[in-house]
Amino acid sequence: MKPPRLVDLSGLEAALQTFADERDWNRYHSPKNLAMALTGELGELVELFQWLTEDESKRAGQDPATAQAVRDELADVLMFLVRLASVLEVDLDEAVRQKLAANAQKYPAGDSTPSR
Amino acid sequence: MKPPRLVDLSGLEAALQTFADERDWNRYHSPKNLAMALTGELGELVELFQWLTEDESKRAGQDPATAQAVRDELADVLMFLVRLASVLEVDLDEAVRQKLAANAQKYPAGDSTPSR
Amino acid sequence: MKPPRLVDLSGLEAALQTFADERDWNRYHSPKNLAMALTGELGELVELFQWLTEDESKRAGQDPATAQAVRDELADVLMFLVRLASVLEVDLDEAVRQKLAANAQKYPAGDSTPSR
Amino acid sequence: MKPPRLVDLSGLEAALQTFADERDWNRYHSPKNLAMALTGELGELVELFQWLTEDESKRAGQDPATAQAVRDELADVLMFLVRLASVLEVDLDEAVRQKLAANAQKYPAGDSTPSR
Repeated sequence: MKPPRLVDLSGLEAALQTFADERDWNRYHSPKNLAMALTGELGELVELFQWLTEDESKRAGQDPATAQAVRDELADVLMFLVRLASVLEVDLDEAVRQKLAANAQKYPAGDSTPSR
Repeated sequence: MKPPRLVDLSGLEAALQTFADERDWNRYHSPKNLAMALTGELGELVELFQWLTEDESKRAGQDPATAQAVRDELADVLMFLVRLASVLEVDLDEAVRQKLAANAQKYPAGDSTPSR
Repeated sequence: MKPPRLVDLSGLEAALQTFADERDWNRYHSPKNLAMALTGELGELVELFQWLTEDESKRAGQDPATAQAVRDELADVLMFLVRLASVLEVDLDEAVRQKLAANAQKYPAGDSTPSR
Repeated sequence: MKPPRLVDLSGLEAALQTFADERDWNRYHSPKNLAMALTGELGELVELFQWLTEDESKRAGQDPATAQAVRDELADVLMFLVRLASVLEVDLDEAVRQKLAANAQKYPAGDSTPSR
């Protein structure tokens, strides 16, 4: 019996493939290029938090202007990540499942030092 | 009638919340800290492609050792991204849907210059 | 007898300290925050190269508009890096000297596999 | 009369060129690849601060183990940055001088909102 999925990204994966097809962007979408695009988008996300204290960062969803920017940048990062996994033919559900199992062994419950 | 979901990350979100609860890691998981952890993991992912040509990067899934590293790093990035969205209470399905609609307006089908 | 300096960043370090003093920005300039600001600037730099082939990236200095953007982003990255080293009281000349020596041992001359 | 230099990176630039020559690494050192290598090194630097509070990050130089790691990662970032500027034939002293002048106009002294 298969375990329930942890993530289902198939709808987004298909939408991004269609988007690339319609614009003839597949030739730009090598894993190398997509990893760089992901870096650029992550930079924009990190920028939103750089001068905030940790407490202020927790309230970033409550200021409407910041909240919209946070949603937009999170979406951009997720889209390039899913696109990258797609061109590499990586099943993210399977990848995440394996990694969670490995982390559970590496950091036993009750361990109070966070993973690096 | 609601449109079908583009992404469903609820299983992973719940698993990560339980993982943090069991280790008392919630106090480390401010958006600011998680954005930094995401940066660290992205660095490890980018490293895998840095000396490869674009063509070599397309075949990264075929060398078993590289393929496993790629899966692991993609998983790490996705896990911190989902955790970040979770503590910010951002609905990634909704965020991605909005961003795709905005991109479709910004880059009409047939446009051959990729987004930056 | 002291070896000649590999880097001298003292002029920039002083200029950045004065800049922060005059704007009361020291309170924002914790190492944690500056590491994030550096990430944001690096994202902007990487973006310039993301859709270029390697060969195109080598000619990035020849297109005037790209060349100016490249100079600006390299400068931004360097400024935050120097500022970060400054608040951490790290002597970058000494740090670089040690690292070069370590790399020379790790990668003997004639070695053709690049460092990761 | 020329203004005094803000940065002098010529010693490091020459050392890195020699290092690459002796290992036949120039073929790997396209701007695109070096921008990715810089991303990987920055990820390692950011990682050091990700679970620290801002106050703890200010004391990162006082714990010997962390201090050495901080020095090493700062050096790695600086080395790839200087190498990248070198292959792009960018004069970092000139680039930084221009950027500082632009920033002084953009953020007048007394301005208390930090640059993003």
